[in-house]
Amino acid sequence: MSERLRRPSQPPIYCRKTKIRVRYADTDQMGVAYYSNYLVWFEVGRSELCRQQGFSYAEMESKTQLFLAVVEAYCRYHSPAFYDEILEVCTWIDSLRKRALSFQYQIVKKDTGVLVASGYTAHVILDKNGKPKTLPEEYAARLKQVVPAQT
Amino acid sequence: MSERLRRPSQPPIYCRKTKIRVRYADTDQMGVAYYSNYLVWFEVGRSELCRQQGFSYAEMESKTQLFLAVVEAYCRYHSPAFYDEILEVCTWIDSLRKRALSFQYQIVKKDTGVLVASGYTAHVILDKNGKPKTLPEEYAARLKQVVPAQT
Amino acid sequence: MSERLRRPSQPPIYCRKTKIRVRYADTDQMGVAYYSNYLVWFEVGRSELCRQQGFSYAEMESKTQLFLAVVEAYCRYHSPAFYDEILEVCTWIDSLRKRALSFQYQIVKKDTGVLVASGYTAHVILDKNGKPKTLPEEYAARLKQVVPAQT
Amino acid sequence: MSERLRRPSQPPIYCRKTKIRVRYADTDQMGVAYYSNYLVWFEVGRSELCRQQGFSYAEMESKTQLFLAVVEAYCRYHSPAFYDEILEVCTWIDSLRKRALSFQYQIVKKDTGVLVASGYTAHVILDKNGKPKTLPEEYAARLKQVVPAQT
Repeated sequence: MSERLRRPSQPPIYCRKTKIRVRYADTDQMGVAYYSNYLVWFEVGRSELCRQQGFSYAEMESKTQLFLAVVEAYCRYHSPAFYDEILEVCTWIDSLRKRALSFQYQIVKKDTGVLVASGYTAHVILDKNGKPKTLPEEYAARLKQVVPAQT
Repeated sequence: MSERLRRPSQPPIYCRKTKIRVRYADTDQMGVAYYSNYLVWFEVGRSELCRQQGFSYAEMESKTQLFLAVVEAYCRYHSPAFYDEILEVCTWIDSLRKRALSFQYQIVKKDTGVLVASGYTAHVILDKNGKPKTLPEEYAARLKQVVPAQT
Repeated sequence: MSERLRRPSQPPIYCRKTKIRVRYADTDQMGVAYYSNYLVWFEVGRSELCRQQGFSYAEMESKTQLFLAVVEAYCRYHSPAFYDEILEVCTWIDSLRKRALSFQYQIVKKDTGVLVASGYTAHVILDKNGKPKTLPEEYAARLKQVVPAQT
Repeated sequence: MSERLRRPSQPPIYCRKTKIRVRYADTDQMGVAYYSNYLVWFEVGRSELCRQQGFSYAEMESKTQLFLAVVEAYCRYHSPAFYDEILEVCTWIDSLRKRALSFQYQIVKKDTGVLVASGYTAHVILDKNGKPKTLPEEYAARLKQVVPAQT
């Protein structure tokens, strides 16, 4: 994973969007959303991206017995998110290889567009025993549609 | 599950104790531990009770392929718990039948003994397919030691 | 809080509905949503009920400096909820007094209507110092609309 | 924050150690600890480091009305952590400046020493209104003791 991934970049136009409302449970005594929740919201973004590409991550998992295990997660916190705010998670795929892929995320406030967080997660495809596997073509083809053209 | 269970009662002398420190993640914007965390702490109490009775719940699960599925949970909140406080969870078994059991819990502040919460959880023993099963005698015998004598 | 509250009852027609999608983060190694998440979903139901009654709980908190502190929570688990399922949380007010109120909840699977969970939470109105207060009439009036007629 | 921080490095001998037991609540349907929990464990490591340096983060927050707001978090997942395992979180300070500091973490299995995760968090010191502030000397002096000598 290169340093480049850690600079917030503009989401591509084909990024997949989903909305999150900050729950009371998400807040901490500083009065803002606690920092680990962002990784949960990234997961919601990933799930939604799969759904918008025509398959459910749940189904893929149960059908192929393969998992996208996380190997890295990074989040940069730009502005705090408050209880009851609606956030928009934009998700796209940064890199898609046979046995590994990485997602990028940008979270903004729905109302104002203020940048809340950006980050990425890197994954490998594993079977139940933790062995690296190749992502079946059926899914790879669908995910390729949200990978930026290589330049 | 009878109404009686919802009245805080004195933990029996053989209740099993474990300590929890309130994390920043547990707090909410009211400045106190968020209410769903107590059910997590109850789970820590249950796990510790098993361990103190000579078996690990993890091991039981993987060895027997049985689960203690929760069918009811109740918590009464007496005093708020604050970040960094050490709480003591006292756990005991209220009722132990062939296919069902229930735990009671009392949470106090370690330093002052102030009552923070009390509650119970009721469980049934299920196999992987969700079918009710009998708790193997090996585990039932160990749990019997923390059930109050019936009067 | 009476025993009656613990029997699942039919939600009244004016109950307030909101949707939840089960996240991967919500699941545990049993393959179902972990039991403490239901209390978070109850909170989402409460927030949504307020919103549908014309005010935001966030706003009430910051404007009046009052909190609805939880004193009791109860959940009965009828059927497990799985990753990616859409649940519908129906929320209504069971009892509304000057300084206390209680909510009831019913959670069903959106697709099939299968009952997943039911429960209640009881609250008192507190100020920042933990002193009991009266719910301002402005909010009480709005909440009264979702309280069943007393018979 | 430089690329260097993302390479797992050996914890210095003066790193601060604390133990975590993986809870059932921490697991997901893959059967391992869900990836956002590691950020919570990092927080436990930070709190413990403060305590071992002679002050409580809770106290600092209430006394000075200053917060260590997270601006970046990074975690690399080396091996999965399982329910009931005891993990050791080693925490140290990577960089300590007037208005910003960063922590590094390494999580290993207590029994076997197997590396589970490594990462860092970067923080700025803010007041209640979100304005950058200088960390009071009283605390800076105590934290300096766990910063590696600059070479």
